[in-house]
Amino acid sequence: MAIPPLDQLFEFLRFQSVSTDLNYAPHVTACAEWLAGKFRGMGLSAQSYPTAGHPVVVARNEHKPERRTVLIYGHYDVQPVDPPELWTTPPFEPRVESGVIFGRGAADNKGQIMAHVLGVEKTLKEKGDLPVNLIFLVEGEEECGSDNLEAFLNEYRDELKPDIIAISDTGMVAPGVPAFTYGLRGILALEVKLFGAATDLHSGIYGGIAPNPATLLSRMIATLHDESFSVAIPSFYESVAPIQQWERDEWASLPLGDDAMKTMIRSPALLGEPGYSAIERAWARPTAEVNGIGGGYQGQGSKTVIPREAFAKLTFRLVPNQTPAEIEAKVRAHLERVCPPEVRLEITSGHGGDPFLCDPHSPDGLAARRAMARTWGREPALIREGGSIPILHTFKRILGADILLLGLALPDCAAHAPNENFPVANLEAGIRMNQALLEELAAVK
Amino acid sequence: MAIPPLDQLFEFLRFQSVSTDLNYAPHVTACAEWLAGKFRGMGLSAQSYPTAGHPVVVARNEHKPERRTVLIYGHYDVQPVDPPELWTTPPFEPRVESGVIFGRGAADNKGQIMAHVLGVEKTLKEKGDLPVNLIFLVEGEEECGSDNLEAFLNEYRDELKPDIIAISDTGMVAPGVPAFTYGLRGILALEVKLFGAATDLHSGIYGGIAPNPATLLSRMIATLHDESFSVAIPSFYESVAPIQQWERDEWASLPLGDDAMKTMIRSPALLGEPGYSAIERAWARPTAEVNGIGGGYQGQGSKTVIPREAFAKLTFRLVPNQTPAEIEAKVRAHLERVCPPEVRLEITSGHGGDPFLCDPHSPDGLAARRAMARTWGREPALIREGGSIPILHTFKRILGADILLLGLALPDCAAHAPNENFPVANLEAGIRMNQALLEELAAVK
Repeated sequence: MAIPPLDQLFEFLRFQSVSTDLNYAPHVTACAEWLAGKFRGMGLSAQSYPTAGHPVVVARNEHKPERRTVLIYGHYDVQPVDPPELWTTPPFEPRVESGVIFGRGAADNKGQIMAHVLGVEKTLKEKGDLPVNLIFLVEGEEECGSDNLEAFLNEYRDELKPDIIAISDTGMVAPGVPAFTYGLRGILALEVKLFGAATDLHSGIYGGIAPNPATLLSRMIATLHDESFSVAIPSFYESVAPIQQWERDEWASLPLGDDAMKTMIRSPALLGEPGYSAIERAWARPTAEVNGIGGGYQGQGSKTVIPREAFAKLTFRLVPNQTPAEIEAKVRAHLERVCPPEVRLEITSGHGGDPFLCDPHSPDGLAARRAMARTWGREPALIREGGSIPILHTFKRILGADILLLGLALPDCAAHAPNENFPVANLEAGIRMNQALLEELAAVK
Repeated sequence: MAIPPLDQLFEFLRFQSVSTDLNYAPHVTACAEWLAGKFRGMGLSAQSYPTAGHPVVVARNEHKPERRTVLIYGHYDVQPVDPPELWTTPPFEPRVESGVIFGRGAADNKGQIMAHVLGVEKTLKEKGDLPVNLIFLVEGEEECGSDNLEAFLNEYRDELKPDIIAISDTGMVAPGVPAFTYGLRGILALEVKLFGAATDLHSGIYGGIAPNPATLLSRMIATLHDESFSVAIPSFYESVAPIQQWERDEWASLPLGDDAMKTMIRSPALLGEPGYSAIERAWARPTAEVNGIGGGYQGQGSKTVIPREAFAKLTFRLVPNQTPAEIEAKVRAHLERVCPPEVRLEITSGHGGDPFLCDPHSPDGLAARRAMARTWGREPALIREGGSIPILHTFKRILGADILLLGLALPDCAAHAPNENFPVANLEAGIRMNQALLEELAAVK
């Protein structure tokens, strides 16, 4: 197969479509417009729909009543690039090195959704039509909680209703080893702020008198886990569904042992809840993480202040049958209980998403697994993933269709991190998988 | 008395002489040159001496063998302005509002040293001569540890040797209530960094597997104090000299009770080591403070990463008979012991300074207290202070003279904080105090 039109993906990657930071809003909108234009250039009808946040791009072929309808979901927004100094080359100037595409969004999700776009374009060029009624739905708020997608789905429910939904926003097990992802963790995001004295204070004059929000916030964070690194928030694990034996066996057969994971993240060691392998912890156990902490002097050298405030950005990864509402209540109660009375606590709710499980043995699940086997020449592994796609439950509820997670990214793709990457080979395989997938799904009775 | 030449102080305050950040070095140098020029304009011989860091400015009158020699020390460098958004008006554009001068350095130390400069200028104008041989020594590295002052003092030891040293870089008890400061706390600064995985990681994919430096640093900081907020570093208090009963009595008579301190810092509450009043803790008990903490995502919204590293900037205030070397060894041993093996620990030594005590009943001490009584019409309180002037011991050791601390700042002067300020009345009183002080010190046998 010839090298796919990388230039199309590169154009897509050059947009600084960072959705979490409103300063980037014009870039997000421009990216949506570009994508709608790309769809129209392929012969699909397409539109960028404004929302209360960032636009949703929808494209479709001519629908015929006798064909099944497939909705392919993705997102064109990306994570921030911090810390920018750790990128080897600028994050929005994509490049290929040794067969790997580098750039923010290369894997999450521009590279993966573009594989589907290019697969559809190829089928249309080769055959003049698709075997299914197709709907592309590509949103711009996945990285900040998909706040406006639910209202959008409700408004256009009738036009969007599919028989099955396919999403490539997850990962493969290893190069050439495909994976059918039947479970994802949910998420709950909270920001915690502590306020002490009205201003920063001279730590010589007031050290020993004034409450120090940075010190006290650290003490609060220290209560999130016990000594063995289990989460110590009361009844945090109460509604967690235990891992099944067949899952442990399937996962233990994968090349994802603790040593492999340690090598992958290049860390002095792994750390997490005892009693589980690393992959079990990442896929099927909940966590409490500090994504950012700050307070007081951040510059070069020293500044002897007692900071007036400190913050921590927290996320909790959830597993069946935890819910964001349940965990938020438990976390808030815990933080309020452990907060010292000498400071004022402010907790801001962030985005939330339920954990996800689907049936890999359904007719559509089997069809998707056949498409993957045709593409890579081997059966896909049955895995879960640790990340979250909070919108999955909304899709299921509003559109009433099952969801297939057919990931194309590699474990070391550096999603959300500097030097995010996606192999050209995965883009090529994704194009072929899209073509096989639409054929297999069309044939499902 | 007429309003003093505020324009001179304002010119001085406009220099962005931030010594801790090398980006400001040209402003620091320009400030030194300006000050040397000011001294020459008053009829003193003056020079700005380059050092390995920022310049030292020295000025002197014509010395005569029959007169005593007084060295007045101060510093023309200032603290950084962070956080700049909390300044009501720009920190380097000084202004007067309701009789108070606002600007970075207004109190610490430009306003106080300028009171001495203007006092000398006034005496020279009024009497054509001073009653003492005077040396002004004004350095530019007080806020970053006075790293090059010791070498400078050694080099010019013979020319700088005084009978007594006077410094106004401390505080008054309240408006109109002068203080003779006979003790200061020392300081030890350290920066702690933790490193986990080689890059930031997606906290969905790797949450539960990868060590989180922000979480683990918080846990380490939480070990610095026990539940009652005593410092919990082993044997931290071992060499602390107890507070004497006469000190407790003297300090209890001052308008600096716990309620007053709480009102002053506008905090929900005070917090510190149990068993001591707030002022006892601030003046005569050691502390462990976090001056800055950071790691992971710092921007708007959320970013679901496990940060690769986190840092904390720590300072410890020391009291007699603790030493920076002793405490650094204890802190390092503690941090190394509590650091989890899953992350790499890096501790960088910052500046250090011994605590200070002097005798308020010496002939020079009594002379200075008379000068203060003449200036304010009441006896100065005998106090200690919580801040540090690390160079005092170097002065004593190299120049062999006692040191008088005759502070002019108010407790709410916001030194090191936004909206630093210094009343015009304190500048005026400082000018008068300088005139009285040189008279009184000249008469000491």
